[in-house]
Amino acid sequence: MHLKDGTGEMAAELRIHGGRIDTAALLYPSAPQPWIDLSTGINPIAWPVPQIPLARYQRLPLAREMAQMTAAAADAYGLPANAAIVPVSGSEIAIRLLPRMIGHGRVGILTPTYGSHAAAWRDAGAEVHELAALPDPNIHDLQTLIVVNPNNPDGRAIARADLAAFAQAWTAAGRRLIVDEAFADVRTDVSLLAMPELPVGVVVLRSLGKFFGLAGLRVGFVVVREPDASAWHRLLGDWPVSGPACEIATLALQDAAWIAAMRTRLAANRKRLDGIIGRAGLKLLGGTDLFGLFEGPDGIDLLDHFARAGILVRGFAAAPRHYRFGLPADEAAWRRLEAACGTLSA
Amino acid sequence: MHLKDGTGEMAAELRIHGGRIDTAALLYPSAPQPWIDLSTGINPIAWPVPQIPLARYQRLPLAREMAQMTAAAADAYGLPANAAIVPVSGSEIAIRLLPRMIGHGRVGILTPTYGSHAAAWRDAGAEVHELAALPDPNIHDLQTLIVVNPNNPDGRAIARADLAAFAQAWTAAGRRLIVDEAFADVRTDVSLLAMPELPVGVVVLRSLGKFFGLAGLRVGFVVVREPDASAWHRLLGDWPVSGPACEIATLALQDAAWIAAMRTRLAANRKRLDGIIGRAGLKLLGGTDLFGLFEGPDGIDLLDHFARAGILVRGFAAAPRHYRFGLPADEAAWRRLEAACGTLSA
Repeated sequence: MHLKDGTGEMAAELRIHGGRIDTAALLYPSAPQPWIDLSTGINPIAWPVPQIPLARYQRLPLAREMAQMTAAAADAYGLPANAAIVPVSGSEIAIRLLPRMIGHGRVGILTPTYGSHAAAWRDAGAEVHELAALPDPNIHDLQTLIVVNPNNPDGRAIARADLAAFAQAWTAAGRRLIVDEAFADVRTDVSLLAMPELPVGVVVLRSLGKFFGLAGLRVGFVVVREPDASAWHRLLGDWPVSGPACEIATLALQDAAWIAAMRTRLAANRKRLDGIIGRAGLKLLGGTDLFGLFEGPDGIDLLDHFARAGILVRGFAAAPRHYRFGLPADEAAWRRLEAACGTLSA
Repeated sequence: MHLKDGTGEMAAELRIHGGRIDTAALLYPSAPQPWIDLSTGINPIAWPVPQIPLARYQRLPLAREMAQMTAAAADAYGLPANAAIVPVSGSEIAIRLLPRMIGHGRVGILTPTYGSHAAAWRDAGAEVHELAALPDPNIHDLQTLIVVNPNNPDGRAIARADLAAFAQAWTAAGRRLIVDEAFADVRTDVSLLAMPELPVGVVVLRSLGKFFGLAGLRVGFVVVREPDASAWHRLLGDWPVSGPACEIATLALQDAAWIAAMRTRLAANRKRLDGIIGRAGLKLLGGTDLFGLFEGPDGIDLLDHFARAGILVRGFAAAPRHYRFGLPADEAAWRRLEAACGTLSA
């Protein structure tokens, strides 16, 4: 395969964020079609979006409709008695607004993790410290700590009781704890939203993008204590989410049967993924039921290998032998993944 | 009609923002159905939204798709050579982020106008000065000036050449000028986006909510000079607008035939509105082709009068005799408006 000039930048881009199938298609114009995007951790079997009445596009969403959506989120996720759920147009915007909402300074981030957290705080002028584990809560030189739980890309999960105890101690000194639960739909056992009370200073983020497979919908939630919610409401206004997105999110969150069946299905699919990738000689490092993180052999660029087969996996600039694989959408995709693994071990 | 206890607050709410038909329906449970919402200035004949492929809900919007949308916006609106268009999930979020993006301090707002501007700046701690006309650009005690052009609710419009000349003088001293062009689709002659170059410090806001009738879609644009765009992009992230909204906005902005025909149709409907309301004895104060502002007789609460007929118009707490009427959606709505006007003059 001949890559065009100036493609180095594009190739690097594939190691910065998932979902860049347009970039991949430019870099590998002769790869088989359609592209199979395993680079994101997004459930490829999305909640089935119904047709939306035109009126939802036309008029502003009503306060009642926003309230129905947050009530559905509370039912689906749980909600501490003293907390409120604030809808946002994707948790990404919450991640980027957080340094401006709660003030920056010295922030710790449990890494490796989703890169937008560090980028948002650095952009706001914060001093970002990458931490390998929860810090000693008695150490007072950080104002804010960010934990993705369960973590992306390695699936590292902190048990709810442990994180709750840490949160109490950490925030007692006036510090903030941000817990990004973007993948907690498949690890409900770790979610802080089952706590009876949310400690002062804790912010929990949820998203419809991953488990419901609705990344394009841009709906997420910020969960904070009641008094902190009003600042978010004032910043985002009365219509933080579009009318159609509000309706779709409400119906998806209310669909308890789909949610339960999907958890079972994803767990089975994740086992199948581990088997296929494992048999190809990669070592499982961790994951959640929406993705697996694997270590490849030295000296082989697996992102390039799979891209030649029209399969985009996620690479990491900081860990060139690590690859994150999401779940294939259907039998055809599973078979293409198996075939691409076959040419690897051959 | 008997109003329930505690309804004073709800009644007041109808004078703070349009579109509260849920509140109106609670206050007037025996009003005829369906409610006719003339309270918003939103075009009731919306651009016809097609069915959206499920894939748009599932995957993150691509960079290419966002670029297509901003290119379509540039074609539809015009774009100064040195400026960039940044998509936002509704211009309301831009209004609320502006004080945090460009710093607050002393801000002037040409009033009366859309209330969110003052609210956003006051929330951020700014000192808000309400101005009746453009200030002398040689007066240096304001850091920022906000102009809605054409203005809501009175339709006051500042000619492009006048505003451009003012912008040059005003921003030369390092000050900011924010021009909210939410209704400029029906006054393209005043839009600053036809300027060859945007002066440093000028921010223009556009919205798909009003003219395209897609308020529920939550798509708007911030237009700033190229170097200022990157701060917005960093704050909002790569997916400021949902995938379906991106597709719908692109197609709507590209639909030049619909845009041209709608301008003609709205102008005719506005004339019809002026005739009906004028014959009912109200005095026309101003407007755009999407709404008219009228003065009612002393001692009659017209918001209450029309609400009893199931028609929500916009009242103003600060000007109790002023009422803004949007355009009815169809012949049935026109006839109910005429009937409600008939019982008024009787």
